[in-house]
Amino acid sequence: MFLELDGQGPQYAQLTRAIKAAILGGRLVAGARLPPTRALARDLDISRITVLAAYEQLRAEGFIEGRVGSGSYVTAIEHKPAPRHPARTIAAPSRYARRARAVQDRTIGLLHHGLRYDLQYGNPQVHPALNDLWARELARAATYTGQSGSRAQGLLALRQQICDYLARRRGVQAQPEDVLIVSGTQQAFALTARVLLDEGDRVVLEEPSYFGARQAFAAHGARLVPVRTDDEGLVCAELPRQTPRLIYVTPSHQFPSGSVLSLPRRLELLRYANTHRCWVMEDDYDSEFRYDSRPLTAMRSLDSSDRVIYVGTFSKVMFGALRLAYMVVPTALRDDFITAKYLGDFFCPMIEQAALAHFMESSGFERHLRHATKELKARRETVIQGLHRHAGDRVEIADSQAGMHVVVWLRGYNRARTEALIAYAHERGLGLYPMAPHYSKAPARQGLILGYCGLSSTGLNEAMQLFGYCLDALDGGAGSR
Amino acid sequence: MFLELDGQGPQYAQLTRAIKAAILGGRLVAGARLPPTRALARDLDISRITVLAAYEQLRAEGFIEGRVGSGSYVTAIEHKPAPRHPARTIAAPSRYARRARAVQDRTIGLLHHGLRYDLQYGNPQVHPALNDLWARELARAATYTGQSGSRAQGLLALRQQICDYLARRRGVQAQPEDVLIVSGTQQAFALTARVLLDEGDRVVLEEPSYFGARQAFAAHGARLVPVRTDDEGLVCAELPRQTPRLIYVTPSHQFPSGSVLSLPRRLELLRYANTHRCWVMEDDYDSEFRYDSRPLTAMRSLDSSDRVIYVGTFSKVMFGALRLAYMVVPTALRDDFITAKYLGDFFCPMIEQAALAHFMESSGFERHLRHATKELKARRETVIQGLHRHAGDRVEIADSQAGMHVVVWLRGYNRARTEALIAYAHERGLGLYPMAPHYSKAPARQGLILGYCGLSSTGLNEAMQLFGYCLDALDGGAGSR
Repeated sequence: MFLELDGQGPQYAQLTRAIKAAILGGRLVAGARLPPTRALARDLDISRITVLAAYEQLRAEGFIEGRVGSGSYVTAIEHKPAPRHPARTIAAPSRYARRARAVQDRTIGLLHHGLRYDLQYGNPQVHPALNDLWARELARAATYTGQSGSRAQGLLALRQQICDYLARRRGVQAQPEDVLIVSGTQQAFALTARVLLDEGDRVVLEEPSYFGARQAFAAHGARLVPVRTDDEGLVCAELPRQTPRLIYVTPSHQFPSGSVLSLPRRLELLRYANTHRCWVMEDDYDSEFRYDSRPLTAMRSLDSSDRVIYVGTFSKVMFGALRLAYMVVPTALRDDFITAKYLGDFFCPMIEQAALAHFMESSGFERHLRHATKELKARRETVIQGLHRHAGDRVEIADSQAGMHVVVWLRGYNRARTEALIAYAHERGLGLYPMAPHYSKAPARQGLILGYCGLSSTGLNEAMQLFGYCLDALDGGAGSR
Repeated sequence: MFLELDGQGPQYAQLTRAIKAAILGGRLVAGARLPPTRALARDLDISRITVLAAYEQLRAEGFIEGRVGSGSYVTAIEHKPAPRHPARTIAAPSRYARRARAVQDRTIGLLHHGLRYDLQYGNPQVHPALNDLWARELARAATYTGQSGSRAQGLLALRQQICDYLARRRGVQAQPEDVLIVSGTQQAFALTARVLLDEGDRVVLEEPSYFGARQAFAAHGARLVPVRTDDEGLVCAELPRQTPRLIYVTPSHQFPSGSVLSLPRRLELLRYANTHRCWVMEDDYDSEFRYDSRPLTAMRSLDSSDRVIYVGTFSKVMFGALRLAYMVVPTALRDDFITAKYLGDFFCPMIEQAALAHFMESSGFERHLRHATKELKARRETVIQGLHRHAGDRVEIADSQAGMHVVVWLRGYNRARTEALIAYAHERGLGLYPMAPHYSKAPARQGLILGYCGLSSTGLNEAMQLFGYCLDALDGGAGSR
């Protein structure tokens, strides 16, 4: 009997696999007697123990029968190799999968890899000191063994800390029973889609809007209704007559344009939601970082009719590898959200929740926030000053004094010229990201999103200098460096 | 002006809230002048700095205008309190939410709390030593800052370790690119539903079956087709003529009955899947724990037509608070699964993935497995011996020599008598769990699931003694103790 061992893993497993393949492939037929263990061991130059172990395994799995000593025989299993339909070509995926493929195919800005000055946005600052603090918190929390209570909603101690934080920093009065811990903002979108939306339901999005939300709602099968934004955020006068089920907004810092939804607009939006009986999702993704005054109070705190689903995240203020965010959910929807979380993945990892609750309680979190805010403020000022110095009036700065990126509008640029600028900068080691992919239709003006989390102030200074140089070059000046 | 501070959080925030409420409530109308800061500070007996801070905040948010010194005035914002529709009564949730409510309403066995001998199943063993090991792994991994690559699929180092493990222990040959890291088995069900199933699609479940899978597929809108199981697992001859999209099975240890899917049945099931062009989900939830011989090779390793979606979990072998599981996905579906994971929650927490990868690489994981298996084997033997001694032939033991629970069939019991037994045992401090809720229809015989993870051998010994006592009592013997 010819048996070839494939060299993967322990020898007995290799031998088991080889004999199985011989049986399933028809080379060893039902009733065939396997060689005596001693003989096979000699043939293959392996130990007899190995052969015995393989035979034992084959017996346990029903491939052979009989006892060692009286001989082992291939079992009479009914096995005709079925006509093979390569799976790839047949089973069409679900409607969800087809829509998901479509939304994924749309590229959100190109990513620059390995550039010296990459102005990528969306990733948080890296704080080496935070790693050490977090290592201590995790080690401390690793003894967490609590198992009872409604785990789906999230650790009570963490929900309590979040309520304190929201009252102190965001003016939101919430009770722990209103809070749901989720695995990042993206999960908040997916849960909201499942709880609120049937296929074909309308969802209002800001134009431009955050791609993560757009993708989640589109994959779910929602009909997306983009509504224009201006310097005061969403233009509420242009909300559709046909009632949407949901309005998704980023009031404290419109993503990505940076405008802040003004108070009159906030009230107008809440009136609309109440009149049309639809829901508002307030994504407060980076409200922690404001550099002029205290953060604006959240819409949720103005909402007397309990129609606002508030979402905040820890991934932006801590680090992206952490997957923890939270929702403050209207009473009418609370049980549905908890059930959807439970059915989707039971609950979030408990040790990280316990670690974060303690980090917040011990005020390490607030200290980290102050430190991070101070650092980001300095970087932002470097960018603004650099823009004034090197880009001059060729760009218009949309300065919201908040967040982790600055938007600049390019004066006199069309799409082709913007792409040329980005390509030119890329060749020189500067990663620029366009606004255009965040619009559902071609935008009226061209802009860039300058993320300042990934570079030091020195790096940002040099990046702005290089940016000015690239603008010069596109103006027909410098040529290649 | 009467302003009442609510005592929550810093004073400036309290004052801001109080003035806002006065404006939104109509007590302070547009154009009204706010009291000078000094006067208001005196009235309220608070510092002037506090009042200045509150006014600054109100100005930033657009509630008042004007400068300190020249007076502050309520902004002319259009605010008519909208007619209030209490949200609870109006917006019907989505079809998903309605189905989810229905599946949640069905209770899966009652839970006993605070009982001395709780034979709950499904929760893993608690290993204090593992907590310490895990604390070290987490602290070590907390420095993880890698950010690039396809994070949605999971950390490459962890996927590599899983492939090694699967080849060694489960006979599954998988490449890291076939593996998707998910947040527990429940997420594997939810993702599979999204990728494969439209509303109304048929899903074959074992009868009885695991409630988590049943709930996820039912909430998604699948039509569930239960197929009988016997001592060899799923009765493949009874698979439906109308092609299902998916067949969900627990081959290595049927949940909850404990039977092992025999080799002929495995091959029959794969032939059926290939002929009918449907998918098989192999949930290998506790295959790590086998006490007689090596674990059976997974179905996935017999699958030559790439139709098996394999799922394994770390929550059972480590601890429930950890939310990490993995799927080995057919090539044809791989991209769809990664996209669905990305759209659902981006990716799993990276630090825990890095910690687990190192735990596996350093062979701490295998050591833990050996230790846990030895301990569980001892507990299982205690239960089996206790049953022989105290329950005798009044129960039939379905001994699968595997897993974390034993099933006993109660001879001559109907449903009412089983419930009476459970209630009687509960009063005496013994938590018993019935088989019946795991069936879609009333089962032909009554059984109990005896979980042995939560009690020591001593505790289990006493529990079995008490169980025998309860059986005696129900037989009309002992009466109340």
